Amino acid sequence: MTGLSRRSFLQTGAAAAAGVAAGQLTGVADASAATASSLTADVVVVGAGLAGLTAARNLVKGGRSVVVLEARGRVGGRMLNHDIGTGHIAEAGGEFIGATQDHIVALAAEVGVTTFDAYDTGNNVYVNGPLTLKYADQPPFGTAPADPLLLPDLLLLSQQLDSIASTMSVSAPWTDPKAAQYDSITLETWVRQNALNADYTLNVLASATQALWGCEPRDVSLLYAAAYVASAGNETTPGTFERLLDVKGGAQQSRFVGGSQLVALNIAKALGARVRLNQPVRSITQASAGVVVKTDALVVNAKRVVVAVPPPLAARISYSPAMPSARDQLTQRCFMGALMKVEAVYATPFWRDAGLTGQFLTVGGPVGYGFDNSPPDASKGVLAGFVGGQYNRKLGAMTPAARKAAVLAQFAAVLGDSRFLAPVDYFDMNWVDEPWSRGAPTGLFGPGALFEYGPALRTPVGRVHWAGTETAEYWTGYMDGAVRSGERAAAEVLAAL
Amino acid sequence: MTGLSRRSFLQTGAAAAAGVAAGQLTGVADASAATASSLTADVVVVGAGLAGLTAARNLVKGGRSVVVLEARGRVGGRMLNHDIGTGHIAEAGGEFIGATQDHIVALAAEVGVTTFDAYDTGNNVYVNGPLTLKYADQPPFGTAPADPLLLPDLLLLSQQLDSIASTMSVSAPWTDPKAAQYDSITLETWVRQNALNADYTLNVLASATQALWGCEPRDVSLLYAAAYVASAGNETTPGTFERLLDVKGGAQQSRFVGGSQLVALNIAKALGARVRLNQPVRSITQASAGVVVKTDALVVNAKRVVVAVPPPLAARISYSPAMPSARDQLTQRCFMGALMKVEAVYATPFWRDAGLTGQFLTVGGPVGYGFDNSPPDASKGVLAGFVGGQYNRKLGAMTPAARKAAVLAQFAAVLGDSRFLAPVDYFDMNWVDEPWSRGAPTGLFGPGALFEYGPALRTPVGRVHWAGTETAEYWTGYMDGAVRSGERAAAEVLAAL
Repeated sequence: MTGLSRRSFLQTGAAAAAGVAAGQLTGVADASAATASSLTADVVVVGAGLAGLTAARNLVKGGRSVVVLEARGRVGGRMLNHDIGTGHIAEAGGEFIGATQDHIVALAAEVGVTTFDAYDTGNNVYVNGPLTLKYADQPPFGTAPADPLLLPDLLLLSQQLDSIASTMSVSAPWTDPKAAQYDSITLETWVRQNALNADYTLNVLASATQALWGCEPRDVSLLYAAAYVASAGNETTPGTFERLLDVKGGAQQSRFVGGSQLVALNIAKALGARVRLNQPVRSITQASAGVVVKTDALVVNAKRVVVAVPPPLAARISYSPAMPSARDQLTQRCFMGALMKVEAVYATPFWRDAGLTGQFLTVGGPVGYGFDNSPPDASKGVLAGFVGGQYNRKLGAMTPAARKAAVLAQFAAVLGDSRFLAPVDYFDMNWVDEPWSRGAPTGLFGPGALFEYGPALRTPVGRVHWAGTETAEYWTGYMDGAVRSGERAAAEVLAAL
Repeated sequence: MTGLSRRSFLQTGAAAAAGVAAGQLTGVADASAATASSLTADVVVVGAGLAGLTAARNLVKGGRSVVVLEARGRVGGRMLNHDIGTGHIAEAGGEFIGATQDHIVALAAEVGVTTFDAYDTGNNVYVNGPLTLKYADQPPFGTAPADPLLLPDLLLLSQQLDSIASTMSVSAPWTDPKAAQYDSITLETWVRQNALNADYTLNVLASATQALWGCEPRDVSLLYAAAYVASAGNETTPGTFERLLDVKGGAQQSRFVGGSQLVALNIAKALGARVRLNQPVRSITQASAGVVVKTDALVVNAKRVVVAVPPPLAARISYSPAMPSARDQLTQRCFMGALMKVEAVYATPFWRDAGLTGQFLTVGGPVGYGFDNSPPDASKGVLAGFVGGQYNRKLGAMTPAARKAAVLAQFAAVLGDSRFLAPVDYFDMNWVDEPWSRGAPTGLFGPGALFEYGPALRTPVGRVHWAGTETAEYWTGYMDGAVRSGERAAAEVLAAL
């Protein structure tokens, strides 16, 4: 945690935002979830992010006793509400939902969380060297600037990427006839091989991958990138690259009233004492009769376990017997994106008066992509942005004051208004520093990893099942994928019990 | 562990081979290393592989008290002697040393382990589809076959790789003026961009990378490959690609009488009770006054700690405070090669009578590279080989009997002698299954990893220092690099204490 102090972090966690404290979550306690150091349940869920909570919820619905072990002092994983005062929040983590993300939409509705449209009225701003463009969302590519040096490549490459994705199995992209070829090159290499104006296009693409994945175009393989595009849809609507980037009709279409973490908080509230905070899982031991899951303070005996944390963190649990090599290699070859979210709070979203949406795309960092993150009633103005990939490393190494100054200077320069230099509040959240995330938004794969070890992504190992957005078929990397993965893992376990 | 049973594994470990048992290592016990569950020492070393043992040895030489905590029931890490009877061993792990590897040579001599030349008399065999060549080591490229479809590319690419490596800093390859470019592509991509006969050459190169790194050419970046070449030398002799592959004058020149693990066993013997076996380190806590290192049974208080395990396994220790993001990201982006060593034991090295060295290079797997691993007196014949990368996954998933049959069938077919089908003994060691290695020979890096996070490879974090062959400047990935890294880490700690 960098700009966000430990104190404010805890205040914005489960306890503060939901009016419940660790160990005092309300709701019907599981009979088996006593306060003793030894517990028994049908199923242990490791991780109270959206995937784990969804799994737990469905297991309870299925009549099973559940204990959820969460390392942090809060629930929500990579979703985190930050209190900006006067009853409002801004998300310091994942926040957007959009078209075809049916599962998070349905779940949120079930737990009483409503949505509102992301602010998208007016012009976006694009800055690339000497070129500054103001433009409204419009065809042929919703949120793309009409940069004549970029647009041909954007249309060409997105069409090609969509074409590759269109025939790809979302459940097993590594079975694609060309999977070995796609997984032998980086996304950067593919752009260089196919773009008309490669250096220029790659510079813009880097701003997009920094925000989308917290990485550079060289860090992921073409197979991973194409699989991610294929995943950005649902059973009836194929995924497209544009849907990942768009606001209207895309992944940034809507937001949650009360903040995304409220979905997790409401599920946790209903799960009550089943959710145990401050319980990092240290070991999982499988025997013929069941599993034993240990934290520093608890020993939980269960029939099955759902591990709902990102692969690189799942690898840090001690398993007995040891994980099979395919699973272990998969986790060794998955790495979390390097993403920081930076946010400045103003008395009003004054940029709206100037006809700006607040969205911007800039080349050369540090903030590659920015957007209006104000509360639904616009009672305050919040401008947020992502610092990913190479700029994450650079800004992460700065002092908090220097980082704040760099961000605000860029906000002011890009949106052309010195008022951005004087926010009433500023906070940032560098997810790579978070011990129980160590990066965001999702676990990524470089060349060779998915082709060789993809099948281990969600294949259960004995009594150990895997959840988490990385394991989702649709909307991997997103809240919707997290929900889907939790539902799938719960169904697996219910069928096995 | 796959083909090698748990029982034979333990028998070939420290206890059996050195006549010492866990907790009964002889030598002068450190006064501070009592049998109580709480210990105090100047320095804790995590891992009793060659790097950790070398660090401990030099720290003791420097007058410091040391406790070495080893997860396994043996010392030696990725070096493992396997008893083949009548007083002889064959290594199931790392075994060769060669030209410019001065540090392992000096250390072995100091601890009384002698060397002998690897068997290299006669013809090697090369099989690539319909083409079979028998050839002796000779210029222009020591161990390369005179395949007319391969040789031009081999000479061209090795010259280019050497050229890239020649101006690269071995301590900081990520500072190369072209580092970003080199780290944006896979080794496969670079071959495709530069080879005359890319598909053909890549097929042969894959056999080499499977044996050399336990991976495919798509898995590592050009930056990593070039840095590895640069590392294959010493302060006065630049690294070359050929030195990695050659027997005479190369990395496979010599072997240890009594097996490579004997070096580790002899160091451990002298360290005596300082070495604690069966003590996986679970957590390292730093405070202003020192460190606390915990296993399930021991709490060791010390001033400094040297972590001498591969980066992916170092990541599985729980650190407090959490590791800085650059270090954590580095470990997330390092993965162990997928390497299995397969060995068949015969009454005699009968292939020598047919004028064969036993060395072979084949395209299409499963064993890409094989060699004569007989004891120095040739009282038995041992033919060994490596199964890496894609074939590691395939053979690792087979039953032991099917794997053995596949390996022996290949030995017989490639070397043209049905006697290979009937060994007196057969064993294999799949290092990806080993819980405390999870791969071999070394930790690898795909695109983007070293360029962004390389500086975290050996930079101490407070009181935590890093050793292990992955952190070596020269001969990273080799025993020599392990020794060098242990020496460097010990020097760091001695200077800081």
